[in-house]
Amino acid sequence: MYFSKKDILDMESLSNEEISLILDTADRMKEISERSVKKVPTLRGQTIVLFFYEPSTRTKSSFDIAAKRLSADSISISASSSSIVKGETLIDTARNLEAMNADIIVMRHSSSGAPHLLSPLLKASIINAGDGTHAHPSQALLDMMTVREKKGNLKGLRLAIIGDIAHSRVARSNIAGFKKMGADVIVAGPPTMIPKGIESLGTEVTNNIDYAIDGADVIMMLRIQKERQKNYLLSTEREYSRFYGLNKTRLKHAKKDVLIMHPGPINRGIEISPDIADSSHSVILNQVKNGVAVRMALLYLVVGRGKHEDTN
Amino acid sequence: MYFSKKDILDMESLSNEEISLILDTADRMKEISERSVKKVPTLRGQTIVLFFYEPSTRTKSSFDIAAKRLSADSISISASSSSIVKGETLIDTARNLEAMNADIIVMRHSSSGAPHLLSPLLKASIINAGDGTHAHPSQALLDMMTVREKKGNLKGLRLAIIGDIAHSRVARSNIAGFKKMGADVIVAGPPTMIPKGIESLGTEVTNNIDYAIDGADVIMMLRIQKERQKNYLLSTEREYSRFYGLNKTRLKHAKKDVLIMHPGPINRGIEISPDIADSSHSVILNQVKNGVAVRMALLYLVVGRGKHEDTN
Amino acid sequence: MYFSKKDILDMESLSNEEISLILDTADRMKEISERSVKKVPTLRGQTIVLFFYEPSTRTKSSFDIAAKRLSADSISISASSSSIVKGETLIDTARNLEAMNADIIVMRHSSSGAPHLLSPLLKASIINAGDGTHAHPSQALLDMMTVREKKGNLKGLRLAIIGDIAHSRVARSNIAGFKKMGADVIVAGPPTMIPKGIESLGTEVTNNIDYAIDGADVIMMLRIQKERQKNYLLSTEREYSRFYGLNKTRLKHAKKDVLIMHPGPINRGIEISPDIADSSHSVILNQVKNGVAVRMALLYLVVGRGKHEDTN
Repeated sequence: MYFSKKDILDMESLSNEEISLILDTADRMKEISERSVKKVPTLRGQTIVLFFYEPSTRTKSSFDIAAKRLSADSISISASSSSIVKGETLIDTARNLEAMNADIIVMRHSSSGAPHLLSPLLKASIINAGDGTHAHPSQALLDMMTVREKKGNLKGLRLAIIGDIAHSRVARSNIAGFKKMGADVIVAGPPTMIPKGIESLGTEVTNNIDYAIDGADVIMMLRIQKERQKNYLLSTEREYSRFYGLNKTRLKHAKKDVLIMHPGPINRGIEISPDIADSSHSVILNQVKNGVAVRMALLYLVVGRGKHEDTN
Repeated sequence: MYFSKKDILDMESLSNEEISLILDTADRMKEISERSVKKVPTLRGQTIVLFFYEPSTRTKSSFDIAAKRLSADSISISASSSSIVKGETLIDTARNLEAMNADIIVMRHSSSGAPHLLSPLLKASIINAGDGTHAHPSQALLDMMTVREKKGNLKGLRLAIIGDIAHSRVARSNIAGFKKMGADVIVAGPPTMIPKGIESLGTEVTNNIDYAIDGADVIMMLRIQKERQKNYLLSTEREYSRFYGLNKTRLKHAKKDVLIMHPGPINRGIEISPDIADSSHSVILNQVKNGVAVRMALLYLVVGRGKHEDTN
Repeated sequence: MYFSKKDILDMESLSNEEISLILDTADRMKEISERSVKKVPTLRGQTIVLFFYEPSTRTKSSFDIAAKRLSADSISISASSSSIVKGETLIDTARNLEAMNADIIVMRHSSSGAPHLLSPLLKASIINAGDGTHAHPSQALLDMMTVREKKGNLKGLRLAIIGDIAHSRVARSNIAGFKKMGADVIVAGPPTMIPKGIESLGTEVTNNIDYAIDGADVIMMLRIQKERQKNYLLSTEREYSRFYGLNKTRLKHAKKDVLIMHPGPINRGIEISPDIADSSHSVILNQVKNGVAVRMALLYLVVGRGKHEDTN
């Protein structure tokens, strides 16, 4: 099968076949990172710009490592040092990057839809590394890869996403991705953190975390993003932890083989208790590991679209 | 011909033959960035330090991409993270970089003359990426490359540079470069933005932008550098735009095949109207593209000085 | 001999044989940086994370250049841009880096003992690039390399370390390293800058700099770290310079072939006078040069532990 998409903007715009191809490619890419020489020449001479308007370690490092393991040249541009502070528009900055013959622009932006705005204007591929509260497709794909690896298949699984659904691009992309691949999704959180109309995405909704956990194959805890919260959303971290944090007592009602996921960075003792984060149910570090593999797959597929190439 | 200069400090110190060699080399380098594998091994094992005391995206990224496409190792040092904040002198910092066997130091500094100060003290090559209000030779060279590409030759052309001449190292380097290659240069701007004695560089001077545009083959708009302006220089952006901005009405008096240039980042609607920036006259993105090629040429020539090497 | 240490945490945990092996390896690595092509494929496909919680130019650039000259992939993470600001614990951040298959984590942290905390938790190698006021082993090793190069041997030499001993991880690591290799160490500084019980490390202690200089083979001046000083430690820089700065007059009492060292960045005119910093006794730039070589040796040895490999 050919991968024909120029950009990776969100999960909605990827077909089931494209998602499967990405995950299959990521499975093969993962092996490269386990070698003693973790590098293949596949993307040699490709220029990848990491264009992050919001601070990021995890996602940016993951893409950077992915690029280097494929022998691409990666260039990092952050908002604080960039022309943006000098008043240039986003579109002009992106056109400049393209004029320098960037092959792929990996971008994170605080405005939902920013990568979609650039997509039709550029020949360079755009990979959305998180736009506002909208989408974070590489995160959803690494989550799906991790679950598929452990459960064999996504079809028929029950995924509970718990926390601040309203502000979470991770939740939105995972709902779209898991639903598409035949999983059931239930979202749970305090009323103030559940956006109106979320049911229209085909998810069950509850304010009761215990109900959400009951029967779930996968529990995905979201990060309480202190920097995004207005004070009124939760009275105290202690209270949040008590009503919506995942801990041992609460996990008793879950399936014996439930997987615990978290996009990180985790706030230990707030949305997840330390013993649960470090338990055998937790696949949090698998997610991180698979993140590099998924990003290698994405970089490879968008550059090589329509072409056959061997990854070794 | 051999290129024998250790450093690229300003346009004044380059001979006509050296400028032609740089532009010819850049023409050849440009092709590398159009390949599917945009990388040649020419500068493999060379250490290039990007040493920027002032924020920069465009110039720094351009040099970084140029270095990587030539397979050099580039190391980035910015003022905020550097030993400078710990009180080390510029000369000591530079000597330290040289002690680590840096081959080329690409530097931007807010003090005019900073690279000239270091030049005789170091064996490493220094490429001035902008010093105060003095010089920005790689910008002038990419501008000259762009015009030569479109017009065939610089000799006999009429270049109008419009805007804040007083604070512009871009203007100063372009005046020197274009004059040297046989072009006529006229500068235009509000009285407060024209430095006294600029005529001594051999340029015509006017406060009338329409006069400057009339008969120009190339119009180079400068950026209103808000961060450098004192308030008294212009009362409002709106007023500046009205009297000194380039727009459709004003362009009617220009030659049919006039080129519009801008060093970027552009302030749309202030010094240049959006329709002009995006018009067929505009070669702004060509400038960006040629910037990588010119910088590849500079890195290649200063490292290989006195040697013959093939760039493929 | 095999090098079997996973981590480089401090000088105390290295045996004499290991120190000698590191210095011998560094001697061989140094030659690579003198070649016209300064690059060997030794660590190709290795992922090295430069994880700096404190600002650094010198040490970070030195490790970065070392990594690149060995063809490793280096990824830079700083505290300000990292997940730490989002509340993640140090251990979680480190585990994430390991999950991305980092081979070596080079870390600087303001807390003494931070790298020791991570050491048993990670399979990745940890190289301490400075932890609080505790240790800075790569600095001590480059200092030892520099002295060995000039004096042939460390045994029986007399090293005077002068300045703010209390806050100096450089002093602590050098005391441990030089003592281990058979040198005598005397520390000198104002009473407020000498930590209680420092004699227990086997050093002589004095407040009289002239006494310390008398008979020293090596004088190591420490940096007055303005950012670490409380005001009461020294009344003025002028006063410090007068009583504890190294200058020509003071140096008359030293041995004819004394070496002057400084870890940099130097405060000219405070702890060291400009003429002394630039004198023939000064090996300050040799230290910088050897820093790259020592770091190449460390990266090579911890990755290749237990293996035989040729460095060319």
